[in-house]
Amino acid sequence: MTAQALQFKKASLVLPGGVNSSTRLNKAIEMPFYASKGKGSSVTDLDGKDYVDMCCAHGAGLLGNAHPAIDEALKKAMEIGYVNAFETIYHEELASIVCNTVACADKVRFCSSGSEATMHMIRACRAFTGKNKIVRVEGHFHGYHEMIYIGGHPPKTEFPENRTHPYIESAGIPESMAELIIPVPFNNKELLIEIIENHADEIGILILEPINFNCAGIRANEDYLQLVRKLTSENNIVLFFDEIQSAYKKSFQAAQNEFGIVPDVTTIGKSIGGGFPLSGFCGKREIMDLYSPLGKVQHSGTFNAHLVPVLTGLAFMLEASKPYFYPYLESIGKQLFDGFDNIIAKHDLNMVVPHFGARFNMLIGRKTPAQNYEETFCHNNQVFLQILKACWEDGIYFHDYGGGPSHHGFSIQHTAEDINRVLEVLEQVLVRFKNKI
Amino acid sequence: MTAQALQFKKASLVLPGGVNSSTRLNKAIEMPFYASKGKGSSVTDLDGKDYVDMCCAHGAGLLGNAHPAIDEALKKAMEIGYVNAFETIYHEELASIVCNTVACADKVRFCSSGSEATMHMIRACRAFTGKNKIVRVEGHFHGYHEMIYIGGHPPKTEFPENRTHPYIESAGIPESMAELIIPVPFNNKELLIEIIENHADEIGILILEPINFNCAGIRANEDYLQLVRKLTSENNIVLFFDEIQSAYKKSFQAAQNEFGIVPDVTTIGKSIGGGFPLSGFCGKREIMDLYSPLGKVQHSGTFNAHLVPVLTGLAFMLEASKPYFYPYLESIGKQLFDGFDNIIAKHDLNMVVPHFGARFNMLIGRKTPAQNYEETFCHNNQVFLQILKACWEDGIYFHDYGGGPSHHGFSIQHTAEDINRVLEVLEQVLVRFKNKI
Repeated sequence: MTAQALQFKKASLVLPGGVNSSTRLNKAIEMPFYASKGKGSSVTDLDGKDYVDMCCAHGAGLLGNAHPAIDEALKKAMEIGYVNAFETIYHEELASIVCNTVACADKVRFCSSGSEATMHMIRACRAFTGKNKIVRVEGHFHGYHEMIYIGGHPPKTEFPENRTHPYIESAGIPESMAELIIPVPFNNKELLIEIIENHADEIGILILEPINFNCAGIRANEDYLQLVRKLTSENNIVLFFDEIQSAYKKSFQAAQNEFGIVPDVTTIGKSIGGGFPLSGFCGKREIMDLYSPLGKVQHSGTFNAHLVPVLTGLAFMLEASKPYFYPYLESIGKQLFDGFDNIIAKHDLNMVVPHFGARFNMLIGRKTPAQNYEETFCHNNQVFLQILKACWEDGIYFHDYGGGPSHHGFSIQHTAEDINRVLEVLEQVLVRFKNKI
Repeated sequence: MTAQALQFKKASLVLPGGVNSSTRLNKAIEMPFYASKGKGSSVTDLDGKDYVDMCCAHGAGLLGNAHPAIDEALKKAMEIGYVNAFETIYHEELASIVCNTVACADKVRFCSSGSEATMHMIRACRAFTGKNKIVRVEGHFHGYHEMIYIGGHPPKTEFPENRTHPYIESAGIPESMAELIIPVPFNNKELLIEIIENHADEIGILILEPINFNCAGIRANEDYLQLVRKLTSENNIVLFFDEIQSAYKKSFQAAQNEFGIVPDVTTIGKSIGGGFPLSGFCGKREIMDLYSPLGKVQHSGTFNAHLVPVLTGLAFMLEASKPYFYPYLESIGKQLFDGFDNIIAKHDLNMVVPHFGARFNMLIGRKTPAQNYEETFCHNNQVFLQILKACWEDGIYFHDYGGGPSHHGFSIQHTAEDINRVLEVLEQVLVRFKNKI
């Protein structure tokens, strides 16, 4: 038995499924990846085998493993003495950077997880409009909580009913919660107009990912975003961009800045903490000032904006604002995505690799990016899992989240050599599965 | 203008209220405490003034500031390279310790905040019983989220209605959420029997703090806990002890172990991470195994059980399991609480100081501990805030949470000298306010 398999067995005795997150069991390899060490672009399992890390902490690891700037941040925290649950000058410093780089952000609050961020933000939006219903887009992901873990990812068989009876994505969420959710298809203007015309007096929030990393990397069409902005402004609906994954992934700003559409509120997370538990929610002053002690919306917690993630967050911001940072990511990305396109063309593979900055998806079953969740049903996940497993055997670690065509990525510490190795393995593996793609 | 006041002004431009948690604005001093340094039992503000830290990170700081064991844990994390979002052998090690020291814990899952812990645990309890309503006790606190931030702390004026129309504790929580909450008074057996008899087919969860740290340190009476255990067992209701504050505060175990009443599930947090963002939820195998990938209850998140809090958590467990640890806390506690009792007796003050391990409350307006939330309305919070402010001026930092008689504490790094200083200041201050107490 490998050390990995033994650890899985041992951990399963005290942790359900042997993990602290349901999706850490990688269905491709039928066990979690237990890490013994990480260094730059590489991660090592318990048997001492090295892998190119193409998971990159689900998008939080833009600095890669063991970055010297993070070590420095930790040493600084040691000198300060941690002072958990107290604010420091560094909190304001980090907040100022966010307000300068996320278009909609007049003010911000920090917390630990992305789920916390969307949950606390939703609360203020409801208080602001006095309306409780949420329009959300199919295939988009906004966290694991009762407010929004509904109607996002219905299985194919339950998809037709999703718009009349939103699909509840976890056992234990009361059915009454689904009454507050209205799912819509991505990039469909007609249906959005119809929904908002019919329910404007109940809808308080329209939430979406500008890039749907969670499902096939689908991008919002420009005219769709323009319509979304117009309809929400006209109908006293808060426009909520969930940029937990997209902010700071392609440039030193949020995707909204690049797209030129400014929402009312935004959540950010993943990479902003330099690989440490940090997320944020930000937006227009009149909404943010509803938080207590200014207003009547509660947002508290002992561990919100702990000094260590704040300092590692500042370290991330400093690194990411250096002139070489995003150009380097872009060059590595170009190498990877050009290489991918060449493999696809050379072997006439029926697949597409949408990407945005340092994050990408692999969608099997079509040659052009999807426009909405329904169009991703062509993805054969069984075959995809076999592909990921074959890569894993050859030392490339892609994470599988247990669902459809989810996201992968690279970091500032990935080298041209790493990407060459990834492409080499991918080509061999994809060719092997060519007839099933 | 002091550096503290200047920072408050500056931070308020980008953070609502100048803070990342509503309750970090200390109403006693009308501003947040901005820390520049922490060392042992001491915390320093931006003006260079030192305080004895009697906040101790709201209970998370049982090791005090800048503990060497925590520094070592951080160095170890540096060596490993962080490997965020991967599981390691240390996750299983920490989980095993929890399962060995919390009576009800067959298995456990870790996350960052206490709010996350109760939220994820509630979901599995609902899935287990198929019943959605929650009986919760007035004055108890279980996190800042829509599932449970209802009916806990109604203001005095709205208290009579709380049991028919549970009080919603934050703006932005939909009113329909209150339909799932049934508040009951603490330690009242008759009313609990009545509620459960009338609603057994709808109630899935009975949640409570064995010690109500959040409000006057009220203890559960032994016969009340026995009844609670009996009624829930008989009626297919999950008995949920929220021990985020009570676990590992008095001994190397949960309060349930000491009280001899074993619930079905438990949340733990605060001190377990050694001052870092770590919380957990644990319980009987048949409930914990409902979590995906074993069952259909989702619990995931990139930042769940980050390696650094897991290693600082192990450091805490190692420190706390040393033979001197709890006896030392007990001796420091005895000095503090005996001193308090002497001051109260000597000056005939109308107040009481309930305590459990390293955490205590100060309740003004009565000489014996309260039995329930209603009995704490005697507490004159205006005077109390003046008392805390006077202590702050004299270099003792007590945090105020914006409400009633909340909790304070000390750490393993507090010395007999610290406690003497605290008692000295307290005596002077309390005597000054004697006529108002």
